[in-house]
Amino acid sequence: MSENIEKQAAPAIKLPPYKLASRATHPDDSVVPLGQSAVGGQEFIVMAGPCSVEADPQMLGTAWDVKMAGAHMIRGGAFKPRSSPYSFQGLAEEGLKMLAKARELTGLPIVTEVMDSTDVDLVESYADVLQVGARNAQNFSLLKRLGQCRKPILLKRGLMNTVDEFLCSAEYLLAGGNENVILCERGIRTFDNSTRNTLDLSAVLTIKERSHLPVIVDPSHASGKANYVAPLSKAALAVGADGLMIEVHCNPQAALCDGEESLNPVEFQILMRELAELAPHFGRAVSTVSSSANQAVPQ
Amino acid sequence: MSENIEKQAAPAIKLPPYKLASRATHPDDSVVPLGQSAVGGQEFIVMAGPCSVEADPQMLGTAWDVKMAGAHMIRGGAFKPRSSPYSFQGLAEEGLKMLAKARELTGLPIVTEVMDSTDVDLVESYADVLQVGARNAQNFSLLKRLGQCRKPILLKRGLMNTVDEFLCSAEYLLAGGNENVILCERGIRTFDNSTRNTLDLSAVLTIKERSHLPVIVDPSHASGKANYVAPLSKAALAVGADGLMIEVHCNPQAALCDGEESLNPVEFQILMRELAELAPHFGRAVSTVSSSANQAVPQ
Amino acid sequence: MSENIEKQAAPAIKLPPYKLASRATHPDDSVVPLGQSAVGGQEFIVMAGPCSVEADPQMLGTAWDVKMAGAHMIRGGAFKPRSSPYSFQGLAEEGLKMLAKARELTGLPIVTEVMDSTDVDLVESYADVLQVGARNAQNFSLLKRLGQCRKPILLKRGLMNTVDEFLCSAEYLLAGGNENVILCERGIRTFDNSTRNTLDLSAVLTIKERSHLPVIVDPSHASGKANYVAPLSKAALAVGADGLMIEVHCNPQAALCDGEESLNPVEFQILMRELAELAPHFGRAVSTVSSSANQAVPQ
Amino acid sequence: MSENIEKQAAPAIKLPPYKLASRATHPDDSVVPLGQSAVGGQEFIVMAGPCSVEADPQMLGTAWDVKMAGAHMIRGGAFKPRSSPYSFQGLAEEGLKMLAKARELTGLPIVTEVMDSTDVDLVESYADVLQVGARNAQNFSLLKRLGQCRKPILLKRGLMNTVDEFLCSAEYLLAGGNENVILCERGIRTFDNSTRNTLDLSAVLTIKERSHLPVIVDPSHASGKANYVAPLSKAALAVGADGLMIEVHCNPQAALCDGEESLNPVEFQILMRELAELAPHFGRAVSTVSSSANQAVPQ
Repeated sequence: MSENIEKQAAPAIKLPPYKLASRATHPDDSVVPLGQSAVGGQEFIVMAGPCSVEADPQMLGTAWDVKMAGAHMIRGGAFKPRSSPYSFQGLAEEGLKMLAKARELTGLPIVTEVMDSTDVDLVESYADVLQVGARNAQNFSLLKRLGQCRKPILLKRGLMNTVDEFLCSAEYLLAGGNENVILCERGIRTFDNSTRNTLDLSAVLTIKERSHLPVIVDPSHASGKANYVAPLSKAALAVGADGLMIEVHCNPQAALCDGEESLNPVEFQILMRELAELAPHFGRAVSTVSSSANQAVPQ
Repeated sequence: MSENIEKQAAPAIKLPPYKLASRATHPDDSVVPLGQSAVGGQEFIVMAGPCSVEADPQMLGTAWDVKMAGAHMIRGGAFKPRSSPYSFQGLAEEGLKMLAKARELTGLPIVTEVMDSTDVDLVESYADVLQVGARNAQNFSLLKRLGQCRKPILLKRGLMNTVDEFLCSAEYLLAGGNENVILCERGIRTFDNSTRNTLDLSAVLTIKERSHLPVIVDPSHASGKANYVAPLSKAALAVGADGLMIEVHCNPQAALCDGEESLNPVEFQILMRELAELAPHFGRAVSTVSSSANQAVPQ
Repeated sequence: MSENIEKQAAPAIKLPPYKLASRATHPDDSVVPLGQSAVGGQEFIVMAGPCSVEADPQMLGTAWDVKMAGAHMIRGGAFKPRSSPYSFQGLAEEGLKMLAKARELTGLPIVTEVMDSTDVDLVESYADVLQVGARNAQNFSLLKRLGQCRKPILLKRGLMNTVDEFLCSAEYLLAGGNENVILCERGIRTFDNSTRNTLDLSAVLTIKERSHLPVIVDPSHASGKANYVAPLSKAALAVGADGLMIEVHCNPQAALCDGEESLNPVEFQILMRELAELAPHFGRAVSTVSSSANQAVPQ
Repeated sequence: MSENIEKQAAPAIKLPPYKLASRATHPDDSVVPLGQSAVGGQEFIVMAGPCSVEADPQMLGTAWDVKMAGAHMIRGGAFKPRSSPYSFQGLAEEGLKMLAKARELTGLPIVTEVMDSTDVDLVESYADVLQVGARNAQNFSLLKRLGQCRKPILLKRGLMNTVDEFLCSAEYLLAGGNENVILCERGIRTFDNSTRNTLDLSAVLTIKERSHLPVIVDPSHASGKANYVAPLSKAALAVGADGLMIEVHCNPQAALCDGEESLNPVEFQILMRELAELAPHFGRAVSTVSSSANQAVPQ
């Protein structure tokens, strides 16, 4: 895998194939700026929103709700990777526009998935952070293209990627010149189907040991069950993750995609309060940027 | 799997094949008594001790240390399942006698593994709780024999068992008449070898949903790394596990088995304090039976 | 795993932990005698019969049918490992007696599973070969007991065992003094549920490379589908397996266990003819002991 | 997954989400033309060549060798998906030109991987068949783009894909209007690392049951070991695969990529002869297009 790594002058330490991503070459934690927040520092960051952008009222309503609850960032999919070509594929640019409105409304940055290198310019023109989905975690052409992108990248772990392969994928981004990489553990595929995937929280520890990059956890996709999201979120905080990506929908029963794993706004609000209370016990803070917002009124 | 389940008079609900273990037939949590403590209630139980019983000083020293730190139960293996016949196989009855001395010294109950139905009488004559290891999780002859045992059973999840298979194994114990069953998630086998096994904390949630039986987590065997034990222990508390089984060795570097995953007594003491502080935030308590013991002096 | 392997005088080669099972210490193929046949030599051996021994007519009828078709050995389970305690558990000694009658009728040796060390004497008094099932592949107490047994052991690969762990389990038998060990690949557990297990035919090649022990393949349990048995049997021959273990039932639709994966006698007869025709192309022979039997008449 | 499948007039049978790929809607086997050959018919097709196109002499030498041995198609990678950004990434268009020369020299069609939708036009202008690699098996943007392509697509199974997901990926191609789809089983990822991947030959049977599309097997990538390629190739023939994709390198020791799994030309020639001899026993033929070529002389 590493046959062509360029030789170093006097390599005292044998570097892994992900040399730029490795903690050996960069002992301090990397901190990636996200609007007024940042991920990888003391703050425990929560990105929330619907699986898919469906329509203005759904997107804007959910965005407002998650902002009010204290989320630091809005998520929503405009390009949707679906196993079947007959499933809802997302609203594409129309969805990106709705996300932009959500940003305008809430003042929060937005993260959304890009599935193909031909869409990078378009998605970058709208998004604050570009997400690479689990099924594209080893789409090396896309990773190379995103290495040239000047916005942060949220890279999800592939369903069958080892931690080292995951860090090699991140290396594609770093080697291309993009230093703002956020990793996301979202469950791996195993023999057990009790949950949609098997959340591998030990991987957070391994990543922190081997790399300086920030890592967040997506308990919604990992479990596929809304009632597992809160306990797994707290467990993610407990193992030292830098934040969460959580699916919230203003009306989960009506969601076009993954409704069974989405929190409703009230459930999300309760979770945010619990996380804010717990965070200091793990040396973290859940920032209160939105506590003042609780008094704010949407226009 | 369930072809021969005896028919119920008027089955409104379709029961799973593990009918006695299922929450449908027993909505309240089961509480299994463990000496002065109990597992499955509000208390968050910690079982600790060396992987293998090696010698009196090692066993008694470690036992005293974990008691002082607040553990509720002593663990130690006298019969050791090892992949290779040339690896240390445990001290057998000699080891059980050392465990009994550790109980005498500390006043804490002891849990130890039984590997074969021919050893059940012997192990039962010494142990307070009999453990079934992961590699025997579907040794149905052993499970049947233990169903007739009058002491509680700690059943570890097999490396490749689904949650439903795990509950079916527990059903063998319950169907045999033994109601005191404690489940233990200890990591499953997956493609990723960053950790020894992949700790499946979502399984704790699934077990709690489907069954009334108490479930604890073994972060030591799951990860195989001492420095992962504390964060994974806190994560287990966060997802609602009823307790932990943790490897502690008075001198991990000299351990005959699994030293790299054992905490030393100081690390364990720090973890116990952290757990005691965190537990109330998750609606649990880490009992203070040993807080008075901090003043006690070993003879 | 190998910490206690006794030191060799001048070990030029580093031995694996399964030193007696390794090809390094025993370059020639081992041949295990099976009545008038043998497994591990040029002959391609077929063991066939029902999953469970159910009743005299079923067992004797099936035994006669498989003998007529050319099988070298009769299989049938009297002790059945079942995930659920409410599933049919086998006829125990009554079943062993039926197997003995089947041997008398056909003149073929019988293989049957032993699940517990307390049953070894009983099973050994009836069986020609004792089988260890996949769920007991790391039941080390049972393996130690069977090391002292004087009859050949058929050891199935555990659902979760690597090839090296499999060979370490065989080492328990060899280290105990039993040289007659036959390995059986029967599918491993993976994420894909299209088939009951995932047949790992590459493992046959790895075993042959690393060990001198004979290895057969069980396509019935591996696939769980009767119509997959013939093509997978031929593939097993193609990769160099020493034989097969195949489920045949005189009336698969009425089988108490695993009917959906059992061949009926006609299907089995066709498969045996095809194997006999193919075997020479892979340097093997399917012996014609039963070709004369085709003229024989059952009493 | 299938929520948006358009309703059929009177659906007697419930169709799977891969309706165009399913055998239910297309009972006869599909046959995909490949130059003078075709895959999916009686002929057993062999695609062979180096993992990577490295240089004219290597590519042309290997191409001539595999043609002489009877291969039906030349393979070679010009765009290489590598876990590490520092590994050899392929020669890109320069490599495609070498492949075109190999076609000219041998008269055989060429298959090569396309990794990104932006490269489809370029690759299509050179290749006879476009390959989608395992890591792009769920790169749905690429699949959609290739659905509009007028050349056949060779779709490799993802390391983590179930058979149904694999067929859903094929459905993207068919739904886009490209009927010439060849599937390729190339091993899945499991817990066992004895081989690079675990070749899942049962999947060939499942695919044939559920779909009309032709399916070939890649034993080189599946095993990662040159000496496993011949036996696994014969096993693939035995289970009913429609052909093989095999790595051959004129000098495996000097290969820039995957040399340890490449056959040398002599080994490949021996394998082709064995396959030609065996094929009729499985109702297949290995065509003799190149038997006349044995007399031909390269210019």
